[in-house]
Amino acid sequence: MAVLLDAMKKENQPTLMDRVKRFWTLEFLSGSAMDIWLTGAFTKICVYVNSEQELKDVYQKAKDAGLLCSIIEDNGQTEFHGVPTFTAVAIGPHLPEQLDPITGKLPLL
Amino acid sequence: MAVLLDAMKKENQPTLMDRVKRFWTLEFLSGSAMDIWLTGAFTKICVYVNSEQELKDVYQKAKDAGLLCSIIEDNGQTEFHGVPTFTAVAIGPHLPEQLDPITGKLPLL
Repeated sequence: MAVLLDAMKKENQPTLMDRVKRFWTLEFLSGSAMDIWLTGAFTKICVYVNSEQELKDVYQKAKDAGLLCSIIEDNGQTEFHGVPTFTAVAIGPHLPEQLDPITGKLPLL
Repeated sequence: MAVLLDAMKKENQPTLMDRVKRFWTLEFLSGSAMDIWLTGAFTKICVYVNSEQELKDVYQKAKDAGLLCSIIEDNGQTEFHGVPTFTAVAIGPHLPEQLDPITGKLPLL
């Protein structure tokens, strides 16, 4: 979800009621990986890493490859004793051949 | 995420390349629960039920109350021996006073 929110174009428009109407728009072409994913079975593959540094490295590799990706920093309110902690990276939707060079060697969760 | 996708207005527009450009737009007012959630800390509370029927009941109650909600049916490809199975319900974003009557008594996951 973080990836989708990051990928959205965000616009504001004042209303008569002293509030602002927000429009967050996701734009994609028919037949694109985004289209296939959103209108298909939402295939997700979960893999894991062994350290926060490895997590950051995966994120950087995906970014450098120009892929849609997002890193999640948990506020630490419940599990991490108040210490903000990077806990997950989401990449895609993309086709397998784009994802495999980044995550293909990581073990399944 | 399913809730957000369900809440989006979906439009199509033909392009010159024989493809279709898709616009999925999420519309909300400043100060609304959606706004507070999307621009805040994405607070999530996970609770559980003990049966598929109880899951469906929670979903129906949320729907009847007019809340944003979505029920997830897993394809069953990996965990459920090919049998499609309802596995989760997402409700909101909404303010606590709207959610509590529906899920306030369920145990934390």
